[in-house]
Amino acid sequence: MIKVSIIGATGYTGRELVRILHFHPEVKIDSLTAKIDEECLISDVFPSFKGVIDFKCSPFDKEIVKNSELIFLAVPHGVSMKLVKQFLDDKKKVIDLSADYRLNDVNDYEKWYNMKHLYPDILKDAVYGLPEFKRQEIKNSNLIANPGCFPTGILLALLPIMSQDIVSLNKRIIIDSKTGASGAGRRGTLGLNFCEVDNNIKAYKINRHQHIIEIIQQIEELSSLYLKNLIFVPHIASFERGILNTIYVPLSNMVSLDKIREYYLKHYARSEFVKIFDSAENIAIKDVANTNKCHIGLSIDEETSSLIIVSAVDNLLKGAAGQAVQNMNIMYGLDEGLGLVR
Amino acid sequence: MIKVSIIGATGYTGRELVRILHFHPEVKIDSLTAKIDEECLISDVFPSFKGVIDFKCSPFDKEIVKNSELIFLAVPHGVSMKLVKQFLDDKKKVIDLSADYRLNDVNDYEKWYNMKHLYPDILKDAVYGLPEFKRQEIKNSNLIANPGCFPTGILLALLPIMSQDIVSLNKRIIIDSKTGASGAGRRGTLGLNFCEVDNNIKAYKINRHQHIIEIIQQIEELSSLYLKNLIFVPHIASFERGILNTIYVPLSNMVSLDKIREYYLKHYARSEFVKIFDSAENIAIKDVANTNKCHIGLSIDEETSSLIIVSAVDNLLKGAAGQAVQNMNIMYGLDEGLGLVR
Amino acid sequence: MIKVSIIGATGYTGRELVRILHFHPEVKIDSLTAKIDEECLISDVFPSFKGVIDFKCSPFDKEIVKNSELIFLAVPHGVSMKLVKQFLDDKKKVIDLSADYRLNDVNDYEKWYNMKHLYPDILKDAVYGLPEFKRQEIKNSNLIANPGCFPTGILLALLPIMSQDIVSLNKRIIIDSKTGASGAGRRGTLGLNFCEVDNNIKAYKINRHQHIIEIIQQIEELSSLYLKNLIFVPHIASFERGILNTIYVPLSNMVSLDKIREYYLKHYARSEFVKIFDSAENIAIKDVANTNKCHIGLSIDEETSSLIIVSAVDNLLKGAAGQAVQNMNIMYGLDEGLGLVR
Amino acid sequence: MIKVSIIGATGYTGRELVRILHFHPEVKIDSLTAKIDEECLISDVFPSFKGVIDFKCSPFDKEIVKNSELIFLAVPHGVSMKLVKQFLDDKKKVIDLSADYRLNDVNDYEKWYNMKHLYPDILKDAVYGLPEFKRQEIKNSNLIANPGCFPTGILLALLPIMSQDIVSLNKRIIIDSKTGASGAGRRGTLGLNFCEVDNNIKAYKINRHQHIIEIIQQIEELSSLYLKNLIFVPHIASFERGILNTIYVPLSNMVSLDKIREYYLKHYARSEFVKIFDSAENIAIKDVANTNKCHIGLSIDEETSSLIIVSAVDNLLKGAAGQAVQNMNIMYGLDEGLGLVR
Repeated sequence: MIKVSIIGATGYTGRELVRILHFHPEVKIDSLTAKIDEECLISDVFPSFKGVIDFKCSPFDKEIVKNSELIFLAVPHGVSMKLVKQFLDDKKKVIDLSADYRLNDVNDYEKWYNMKHLYPDILKDAVYGLPEFKRQEIKNSNLIANPGCFPTGILLALLPIMSQDIVSLNKRIIIDSKTGASGAGRRGTLGLNFCEVDNNIKAYKINRHQHIIEIIQQIEELSSLYLKNLIFVPHIASFERGILNTIYVPLSNMVSLDKIREYYLKHYARSEFVKIFDSAENIAIKDVANTNKCHIGLSIDEETSSLIIVSAVDNLLKGAAGQAVQNMNIMYGLDEGLGLVR
Repeated sequence: MIKVSIIGATGYTGRELVRILHFHPEVKIDSLTAKIDEECLISDVFPSFKGVIDFKCSPFDKEIVKNSELIFLAVPHGVSMKLVKQFLDDKKKVIDLSADYRLNDVNDYEKWYNMKHLYPDILKDAVYGLPEFKRQEIKNSNLIANPGCFPTGILLALLPIMSQDIVSLNKRIIIDSKTGASGAGRRGTLGLNFCEVDNNIKAYKINRHQHIIEIIQQIEELSSLYLKNLIFVPHIASFERGILNTIYVPLSNMVSLDKIREYYLKHYARSEFVKIFDSAENIAIKDVANTNKCHIGLSIDEETSSLIIVSAVDNLLKGAAGQAVQNMNIMYGLDEGLGLVR
Repeated sequence: MIKVSIIGATGYTGRELVRILHFHPEVKIDSLTAKIDEECLISDVFPSFKGVIDFKCSPFDKEIVKNSELIFLAVPHGVSMKLVKQFLDDKKKVIDLSADYRLNDVNDYEKWYNMKHLYPDILKDAVYGLPEFKRQEIKNSNLIANPGCFPTGILLALLPIMSQDIVSLNKRIIIDSKTGASGAGRRGTLGLNFCEVDNNIKAYKINRHQHIIEIIQQIEELSSLYLKNLIFVPHIASFERGILNTIYVPLSNMVSLDKIREYYLKHYARSEFVKIFDSAENIAIKDVANTNKCHIGLSIDEETSSLIIVSAVDNLLKGAAGQAVQNMNIMYGLDEGLGLVR
Repeated sequence: MIKVSIIGATGYTGRELVRILHFHPEVKIDSLTAKIDEECLISDVFPSFKGVIDFKCSPFDKEIVKNSELIFLAVPHGVSMKLVKQFLDDKKKVIDLSADYRLNDVNDYEKWYNMKHLYPDILKDAVYGLPEFKRQEIKNSNLIANPGCFPTGILLALLPIMSQDIVSLNKRIIIDSKTGASGAGRRGTLGLNFCEVDNNIKAYKINRHQHIIEIIQQIEELSSLYLKNLIFVPHIASFERGILNTIYVPLSNMVSLDKIREYYLKHYARSEFVKIFDSAENIAIKDVANTNKCHIGLSIDEETSSLIIVSAVDNLLKGAAGQAVQNMNIMYGLDEGLGLVR
């Protein structure tokens, strides 16, 4: 049994981690901590756990996690930064769900997160935990930087096509994303008040969302392309969980949809959580909510030589906690999908 | 033109007051104030007003409202208490949407609101602003205590039957209410986060909601009954605005539904905002949302000799801002429904 | 491995049955049938199953299910009636999710369902499948009549107290229930259109819902009481799944809340899916959605000597498919919760 | 008073027409008709009208509307086609909310609507009723083809920039639209069931939605451009009313955002229902719902030389019934906004 601790157990991502790991057949939860004033039961925070997962949750203290061999960090960026260093020094494995170790280039981090990075040396040891593209590296790493919720669904949708010589890189790739409110975290702010979110949709952080750099970096790394001309516009919509990405890719060579679909099917042949659909129509967040799956649909617009890709993930699962556990499974040589909902 | 000020213009009730009064043909908005750090445009707070109602909104200051003859107070209880006194001293008319002057008995106030009342003398001058039962008093008053959102729909449903000698007062009257999230105010707290409210419903303040005493007091005053055996359980549900009350009334004498409906039709013959339906089924908050109306449906269960009443109001309009303007219309001898949505 | 067939696989309840049984470690799905024109893949009906559960689904034919030892019937009442008879004749076990075999008295069935019952003799062989009260009978039966969605949450809330000599039976027990839209089935009718249901709530079938008789019958059978004075008012609210019941029980002897809670804790000590909470406040459908659990909270109103119980279930799981599988587990001597979400 | 009839009064658009026209100070509703089996009260169809708008609604018959001088047609395309001809022959004015007379080219109509057009001659007499661009033509016409819901918000967002020589026409203009469920009409189909729409979003009719041709035609007509390279992807999202369009326009000459905003402000200086915002962020359907307004926000992405426009309208008002009344006001020389919500 793998002894794990979850730091940040009282957020929405923390809640999903607790639930998945509690029922995981190869895991024992050793401790839960969070930014709270005093010890409580996690089932007092989340009544859905009452009588099922009645573990205590404590304010963070190094002592509490000392017996864990693997730490899940579900805390804000900046907070993870130092904790990761400590845990690695203590010879623990770490899966960090924050952005602190996702970027290869420290300058990118400091520009997009507006914060000095204290341990740039560790960046090179961190593996970007997108299992469908990095299984081998994940297996051999002690530090997984778990991808952001937007990048997960966007990269899974874009990567299989990017290295093919059919994308027109001097035209714009446009990513129009729609996320549910849980992406903004478990907290009380006016902007997240039910009356503000319900029956509404709006764009935010137009081309200035910090996940852009993560997307660009991974595409460039995995496809050896130099990517410019990317537009990313996220929207917050009136649903609780899930992200739908509508992606408009300009093609340089007109290739048949069948051929393109083949790239995807081939690439994801071993990836049980990624499903390829015949059309981009009707890909729906409802169909992936509460699962670790990513649905991807492909359509072509011949008049404009465009590939239109729609992808959907549950932001809290494949976009966060589920993917983290998928990474753990790989690190420990377990079945990749163990404990996860298909 | 009536010159008015709105204190507390940045809440949900304040927003409705601003909108209604701006388009009211007999009103001129003189000033808007709110608990804010510095002056702003009300259209910056509510983008829906942009280019339509671009008035400035200021931190409260006595000077700002000095030219207004009528003040709408949409601030928390306790805050209203002193302001009302000031405005009355300055010979202004006041419509107070807080609870501070709704109760006849200062002891009730202090018990239910857990706060000392500084001006118990003024209580007797205040008129409880339920137009369908107090038109004459409202007309002659300078201080209207605007009813709470729950009491409005509940009293309109119960009052016509209470003074009839057919209700069994030694059995329990049960009021099961369902309110939308806007009733909790325009603010950021975890409990109002979209992810907590959406796709959910739950009871709160079971028989300890402060509106109970307001309901009891009005029933006792208007029907000359002594009322005990009232159970009131509010629920918060996943809609933005509206309250649905399902009320179970034990009958002592079995009277036909037709006869009972007659009491209601007769009582509300002159009240254009109250509509009586043939059955308690299908009374829906959707049908009263964004209007100043109250829908009331009546059904009888013969086996248990019970009258089942369902009433619906928009909590921000008939339950707050709309009713406040209805009261203003009466105070000034205008058509009762002027400027209000039927 | 238990070989099962699901009749009615394309409804919401059918979908949940397929999902649970596919992942159940002791079950092999042998066939899926539904009222469809021609064979299809169940993953074409439910894209969430794509690549995971790609079984074919066929129009019903007796031949198709001949190799199954256990049949789940998720079809409308009236349709089940004859199929159950056939399957029992063929020596199969049956779990019927319709109402056809739930009532002991054929007259009650014909009155409430307005339909002649063709096999009244079978009624006495059917066991009402509420595991928390009928484990032994379920174990020994070949025909389980799976309880309705409303009765499940209501009976679990009421039964522990009913046989205690503290309920005042000559006063009214009032049940005010709120159900999500999935209770009305997977179909297209104007009343279920998103625009009609969203941001709305309304009462329907006031004291004429067919589940009343099922509730009365079970209470009378299990508590040996004669029950009159029951009022049941269901509401349809704007959420997808879940039922919240607010139940007002008149007490004859004032007993402490602690004492009452003890009855419940004792009764459900062995029942891992029923959780008892300290208060009726904050019992929320969100906390039981997507699980097989029932949450029950208890509050007392001393002034009116009333017990206020709030219970919550997921109507598609504990109120239908989950409970059906729980019954199957018991019939086959498996762990009662195998394959079910806690 | 203008005597009007509404054909198709029982749809969502019909309902809005009835409401607006009933309260319009210069209109008298002469008759309501719909595709119904027998005469009823419109307030039986829409309980929100009970006691307020209790007009009868009849199956369509030519006699019923004979005294009306203006006819609003809120019926499906194909049905309008013949009725318009009849009414024009009878010397009535017509505002047709269907698509039958929106297109200049009969071939376009037959291709996109897959239906033969019976009266191509009338097409040239019809004026496309987008008041902000066609006031003069509307004033002098007897037949207004009221724009579709998507085209309204998209054209208002695009037209001011298109004739400026700064848009790169050989690159793709991408329109990613999100509509609420009411756009699909007041009807019962599985796809519109609350359980399918709630907490969901998905793309449909990718680049094959019939509104594309309407958008292209108007841009070409009003800007004298030849437009290719347009991609239009509508999504259906979980809100009742409203459309948000996110539009990505490639710029050929980099012009400052201030300069671009000026084009819009200048163009809409006389148009009280169109509001221009400083940024495309935070344009929200909630802010235009239940009004006749269109909100437009503008942002620039310098790296890709793109203008990002977000526009929002209420699909039932500015996108249908509200705009129809705005057109009526212009036809009759009334204040353009009379009877409409700002």
